[in-house]
Amino acid sequence: MTPGLDHVAIAVKDLDVAIKYYVEVLGFPPPELEVVEEQKVRTAIFGHGMGRIELICPTEPDTSVAKFLEKRGEGLHHICVEVKNIEQSLADLKAKGAQLIDQTPKIGAGGAKIAFVHPKGAHGVLTELRQGATQAK
Amino acid sequence: MTPGLDHVAIAVKDLDVAIKYYVEVLGFPPPELEVVEEQKVRTAIFGHGMGRIELICPTEPDTSVAKFLEKRGEGLHHICVEVKNIEQSLADLKAKGAQLIDQTPKIGAGGAKIAFVHPKGAHGVLTELRQGATQAK
Repeated sequence: MTPGLDHVAIAVKDLDVAIKYYVEVLGFPPPELEVVEEQKVRTAIFGHGMGRIELICPTEPDTSVAKFLEKRGEGLHHICVEVKNIEQSLADLKAKGAQLIDQTPKIGAGGAKIAFVHPKGAHGVLTELRQGATQAK
Repeated sequence: MTPGLDHVAIAVKDLDVAIKYYVEVLGFPPPELEVVEEQKVRTAIFGHGMGRIELICPTEPDTSVAKFLEKRGEGLHHICVEVKNIEQSLADLKAKGAQLIDQTPKIGAGGAKIAFVHPKGAHGVLTELRQGATQAK
């Protein structure tokens, strides 16, 4: 798989209202819904394969996404990029002095390895690195 | 073309430094470079077809992207979504009371019709609507 954008995530306050906007106003096909227990979010995923849009909505207060919404309101939250070698990318970032949120990869949806990089180490963008099985259906 | 994410744009202060990060650290294939005179930006586009990443870097001060960088620093700037009927989407947005930056579509790269919607009308995300010829090569 060629490295590139896996998805862009947008934090929203009310998932149903936001879905309605993307489907009824922008004409997107209905999204796939998923609950990500670990991050305490409900998600709506538009598109398949690379370059999806993922709406994320917190299911509990005091979580990272809930705090983001409280502080900044709805908006662009992070990008997820597919990389060829996540350990190597993390090592390169560390060598550059970038701030890593995850020092080593975790196992995410579909068995992929994932790790988050702080915006300070990634040109201002909270970045999820991902290597592995795609979520495409 | 199915409506969905055309690209996500990221504002950066130094295009060459940011390109180096995406290519050398994340392993992206080299981007396509383009100057968009109308918006006074240099861009680097990663990927082809839908779901691209576009780095944007101002060529002049006092422009929209330069002011964004000054105020907020590098980061996620806007999304561009492909829609089926841009006039209809703009009418729907207007009816909802959304704040439109462009009341009617302009002609953008590749002859596509484009129009920007203010974040306040688009769940917190500066959104470029686009209908028409894709930039995919």
